[in-house]
Amino acid sequence: MNGEPLSALCTPALVVDVDKVKRNAQRMIDSYQKLGVQLRPHMKTHKTLECADIMTGGSRRCIVVSTLAEACFYADHGYDDILYAYSVPFDKVERCAALSERLELFQILLDHPDALEKLRKRPLKDGRQWHVWLKLDCGNGRAGALHSDPAAFILARAIAETEGVQLTGVYAHCGNTYNCRGEEQIQAVAQETTSLTVQFVEKLKAVGITCKSSIGSTPSCSHPIKDMALLSEVHPGNYVFYDVQQSVIGSCSLEDVAVRVLTRVIGHCPHRNQLLVDCGWSGLSLDGAGKLPTGYAVIEGHPNLKLLSMTQEHGRVEPISGELDYSKYPLGSLLTLIPYHSCATAVMHPVYHVHSEGRLLGTWTPTRGW
Amino acid sequence: MNGEPLSALCTPALVVDVDKVKRNAQRMIDSYQKLGVQLRPHMKTHKTLECADIMTGGSRRCIVVSTLAEACFYADHGYDDILYAYSVPFDKVERCAALSERLELFQILLDHPDALEKLRKRPLKDGRQWHVWLKLDCGNGRAGALHSDPAAFILARAIAETEGVQLTGVYAHCGNTYNCRGEEQIQAVAQETTSLTVQFVEKLKAVGITCKSSIGSTPSCSHPIKDMALLSEVHPGNYVFYDVQQSVIGSCSLEDVAVRVLTRVIGHCPHRNQLLVDCGWSGLSLDGAGKLPTGYAVIEGHPNLKLLSMTQEHGRVEPISGELDYSKYPLGSLLTLIPYHSCATAVMHPVYHVHSEGRLLGTWTPTRGW
Repeated sequence: MNGEPLSALCTPALVVDVDKVKRNAQRMIDSYQKLGVQLRPHMKTHKTLECADIMTGGSRRCIVVSTLAEACFYADHGYDDILYAYSVPFDKVERCAALSERLELFQILLDHPDALEKLRKRPLKDGRQWHVWLKLDCGNGRAGALHSDPAAFILARAIAETEGVQLTGVYAHCGNTYNCRGEEQIQAVAQETTSLTVQFVEKLKAVGITCKSSIGSTPSCSHPIKDMALLSEVHPGNYVFYDVQQSVIGSCSLEDVAVRVLTRVIGHCPHRNQLLVDCGWSGLSLDGAGKLPTGYAVIEGHPNLKLLSMTQEHGRVEPISGELDYSKYPLGSLLTLIPYHSCATAVMHPVYHVHSEGRLLGTWTPTRGW
Repeated sequence: MNGEPLSALCTPALVVDVDKVKRNAQRMIDSYQKLGVQLRPHMKTHKTLECADIMTGGSRRCIVVSTLAEACFYADHGYDDILYAYSVPFDKVERCAALSERLELFQILLDHPDALEKLRKRPLKDGRQWHVWLKLDCGNGRAGALHSDPAAFILARAIAETEGVQLTGVYAHCGNTYNCRGEEQIQAVAQETTSLTVQFVEKLKAVGITCKSSIGSTPSCSHPIKDMALLSEVHPGNYVFYDVQQSVIGSCSLEDVAVRVLTRVIGHCPHRNQLLVDCGWSGLSLDGAGKLPTGYAVIEGHPNLKLLSMTQEHGRVEPISGELDYSKYPLGSLLTLIPYHSCATAVMHPVYHVHSEGRLLGTWTPTRGW
């Protein structure tokens, strides 16, 4: 289908604008080159080789992943310097050890002394070291040792002092930027996360332990603050696609969003003032419920339409106000959904259709599972 | 891993109790054999060959699918008499024609004269007929010609009278049973849908058109009413797995639910009175938000735990009341989630792990896409 227009696709279909992907990726590369900070892009949004190549500028080095399936997928395809940014799960220590022994540099993170004990009990072969980041919770409220808890510092020292284990750095995910609206709020969270992480690393330095620092999230990394130059690395991921959520937060404009779900009108329901489309939650996900006046997505070019509800393979669309003019939406006509959360939408698709200016270039196939 | 206990699995993992699957399938087979009604099981919940074999009693005939990807998958593996129960999408007419020309019996459905026109313009080869069900909306409020609209009857006649097209039957999906609580409410909807569908077929008979009738939904088919004996077919699907939602509706007991998501504790957060598990929405889906006192799932054996929220790879669990006793949930320990909606959860998994009495038997691989 290469060279054909998007309308040649059967729907629902996830389409990726490769020019926007490249622009989003390059902007982030440039931004952190200028700051002198290593960009370690996160793969969890797309999980494809092609997009990883764009995000790493072709180096195939220095990435973050959210699952071991991603780590293995990238390792199998020549990637190295992979950080599995997930508090090392006890059922996966052996698989992590295998990757640590196979790659030049496989890095993990942890936030609990019991995890360190697991590593100590599984020394790596050939005198290799476990490369470990301490996961620090700087206010995000998910994983990580709490920055204000003395146990965090004790754990960092213990990592550094354990034989066979090396403290690579301190890693914070500022997912609390997702509650922000606008650059000012985002930068306040970025500032706090940066300061707490850098201070933590300084405290370690004061006791003779030198290690890196990394913070990340697409909102904070899309609007770098001056102090982020003090960090060793940043690790955003979603920015390569962006989505409606990121535009609402203020990370990007809606113009920057590189992905769409194409759907077709498959039903007219004048007695309900609705139409049906062939995208249900199996093609979009249920992420974003109740967040937008236009429902589960933005319907491009139709600001008066709302994606009201979805079942597995059906979406119900209604006007925000007034009566639907069905002559504008004949059966079979295309509608274009801008996803609320591209990470959640991409996961639903076994293949992405890549285009440039509306002409199909080929497909990208993501990895899945854990 | 065959023969190993479930605890040998890396998490998150979808596990299927094959004994419950067989029991659920057999109960439905027996129930409709007794009523003298053809059971045409729906594949959309699991999308695997192995489960289809169980649901069809090994016949590999007489199934319903929700996507053309499913239709092709089953056709490629020796299945026939496949009903693609989805108002025929205009972008897929050619693929439907190919299946109609390749299989002994491929059936489609439609609910609009424009779709009939598309079929008329694409006559099948070798004198074959399009086998078409009219989709009737008997109060479900999604797809289908409205039963009370005279246009529905006109369309049925038009299907029957169009050259190259055969009216196979009248098909109603009573998804409105999902709003019911308890057998009485379910049976009221089943009665109404059955009566309206049978009456519609009788009206056709009165003008010399003979065709089949089919209704379905797991709630209605789990509690057949007497009049369902008047139907030609029924087409439930979810019953083979069931889920928490079906138990809340009253289709089954929680004991009947054949699927679980295994997850492990990966974090302790005493400052928030929470723990973290390694199942996020990528392993469970966001279906069921706000529906259960226990959050997005039921955590088996722990009625005081609630799956409060999820991000892509993390779940936050908290007690419904009181303080968490972390000694009961050490890092690495297993928790078992009973999904709110098994169709939505199964879609998230590239492979299902099948067991009998907790011993792994192998894996089932679903098809995906459209």
